Amino acid sequence: MTPISKRIGVLGAGQLGRMLALAGYPLGQKFGFYGISQDEPSALLGHFHLHSDEADNLKALVDFADVITFESENTDLQVVREIAKTTPVYPGERSLEVAQHRGKEKSLFKEKGIPCANFAVVNSLEELQQAVNVIGVPSILKTTTEGYDGKGQFVIKTDDQVEQAWEAIGGRELILEAFVDFHRELSLVAVRNAAGEQRFYPLVQNVHHKGILRYTIAPAQQVSEMVQKQAESYISTLLEELDHVGVLTLELFETEYGLFANEMAPRVHNSGHWTIEGAQTSQFENHVRAICGLPLGSTEARQPIAAMLNIVATTGPIDKVLQMPNAHLHLYDKEERAGRKLGHITLLSDSQEALFADIKSLNAFLPL
Amino acid sequence: MTPISKRIGVLGAGQLGRMLALAGYPLGQKFGFYGISQDEPSALLGHFHLHSDEADNLKALVDFADVITFESENTDLQVVREIAKTTPVYPGERSLEVAQHRGKEKSLFKEKGIPCANFAVVNSLEELQQAVNVIGVPSILKTTTEGYDGKGQFVIKTDDQVEQAWEAIGGRELILEAFVDFHRELSLVAVRNAAGEQRFYPLVQNVHHKGILRYTIAPAQQVSEMVQKQAESYISTLLEELDHVGVLTLELFETEYGLFANEMAPRVHNSGHWTIEGAQTSQFENHVRAICGLPLGSTEARQPIAAMLNIVATTGPIDKVLQMPNAHLHLYDKEERAGRKLGHITLLSDSQEALFADIKSLNAFLPL
Repeated sequence: MTPISKRIGVLGAGQLGRMLALAGYPLGQKFGFYGISQDEPSALLGHFHLHSDEADNLKALVDFADVITFESENTDLQVVREIAKTTPVYPGERSLEVAQHRGKEKSLFKEKGIPCANFAVVNSLEELQQAVNVIGVPSILKTTTEGYDGKGQFVIKTDDQVEQAWEAIGGRELILEAFVDFHRELSLVAVRNAAGEQRFYPLVQNVHHKGILRYTIAPAQQVSEMVQKQAESYISTLLEELDHVGVLTLELFETEYGLFANEMAPRVHNSGHWTIEGAQTSQFENHVRAICGLPLGSTEARQPIAAMLNIVATTGPIDKVLQMPNAHLHLYDKEERAGRKLGHITLLSDSQEALFADIKSLNAFLPL
Repeated sequence: MTPISKRIGVLGAGQLGRMLALAGYPLGQKFGFYGISQDEPSALLGHFHLHSDEADNLKALVDFADVITFESENTDLQVVREIAKTTPVYPGERSLEVAQHRGKEKSLFKEKGIPCANFAVVNSLEELQQAVNVIGVPSILKTTTEGYDGKGQFVIKTDDQVEQAWEAIGGRELILEAFVDFHRELSLVAVRNAAGEQRFYPLVQNVHHKGILRYTIAPAQQVSEMVQKQAESYISTLLEELDHVGVLTLELFETEYGLFANEMAPRVHNSGHWTIEGAQTSQFENHVRAICGLPLGSTEARQPIAAMLNIVATTGPIDKVLQMPNAHLHLYDKEERAGRKLGHITLLSDSQEALFADIKSLNAFLPL
């Protein structure tokens, strides 16, 4: 045990916990996980406590931990509140509460002057009809809570689809959001520690397919210094407002009217995976530093341009990846399954041209 | 489990095993360790099997593993031979046998035309006296087996010290080596896989204090292409001769007569730790790739110059390290103790000047 060693308890045991641990051990930290199966990606990387109906296993994790963090914005808020009575949980419950409810999230954006799509929270078909009348079509109907990778969403393209939409995902609280006509999707990963120190990674460009992130270009090309600063000011406002400790990610739309906030994630983010090799300090290490009360590390990129390609559903020709000198493979040790993120590849490059050629050579990993 | 996933059993559970695991998980590998205490650096990073007098725990590791590797050249050769009957062990027993006996090692160098100091294996005071008469003083007396970080060595400076030397470390087989007047100490880390593919990292310069490596400059400055190729040809000969699979390190003296081989280590090496951030593929990842039958990764440096500083005995002002944008901290989670390696720091830089300024600012980590 060194002076900075802490025992970190992670609620969840997926690939994010796995990469947190891989980044945290070199800082002398120890890890414990609270997961649903011994086969999960993090299970071998620390003490493993099986999630069960009995509270004992969760108590064992909390007893072990100096600090608790979580992998997902879908983490049970009540559980976090209960733990926080005895052990610090970072990010805090306010970040979690806001991030797990699209209505509260958008309201916070609005309140803080962060541009975002018009929206309305609806609880019935009638309210939905009324909201569509105001917001118009096309618009996107989503569950206010849960749902990720495009699940629990319905795009209302014409006025006569309202009933169909309600039938598809209604019967619960929903949010209707105006469709934002965007050039591209960007995201900003930021980090803040308890001392209030903040760091921002460069804006990156994300390309989704069927609601799943397929690749990220880092940094996003043709982003002016002003746009970067604008995005930083938005997320900085959120970090302070939420008294956020740890990594926070803001997904943004680039439109002809400037940046629009889409949603935030109170955690390390898929669009930040390129930082493992691509930045001086990875998002995972900076999250660990932040929640352990350490100074934050440099968020500067180590090369002109990088890309992150997700490995989705099937493992694909990874031998090809292993043979590329500038490619880095990350497998999460998960079984193949439709729509599942099994790993990612980082490509480091000196020029956009060379990078795009490399991406092209790995097109087996990209959707048709 | 992906197509390339293997279960790797490591004999030992120290910092080398720890860094192997941190590099191997992203390739989808799983790890098991055979160690002497649950507090060892690798203990939390995989299945842990406690070393005991009972053979069951070792059997459990072997049963778990698809492939076995080891952390130290002091690994019991009989144990490796026994395991090899049922499970592949890389590097093989021949590499281990040669590396753990300084007499066999030097004989191999000589046989293969790799320049090294004159030497003689001695088993008695008389033989030692005779050897000193031939080899002269100053010369270095060492145990033929075991001993690392300068332990088990005696420098014979004058003819009348022969008895004193024998008394200090004799009563067992020893090797007397002529003193080599060298400019500096270099080392070459190389890797070979079962398909015979070989890769070489750049030569690095090592600075020791009291027999313990304190820092490494990578690449070693003012090394001609010819000297690099010369070193590569030496280690390549060894890799082939030993049918070595995995990382092999060759320590060399740079003298006015060219390179002299000092000793080899059949494993990842302290002087290769800079590769974690400093090379496209770290020595740890390449060792894992080699023993798992995967293609080897690029050994190219990612920046003009880097340094690795060992953290020895006490943890030191690591807060300072965390605040340097280009510094990377690696702690092994070990208790402070005189002469013990507790961690290391990697510094990445664009110029020798900037690097040396950074090293100077961290002089608290260097011996006086």
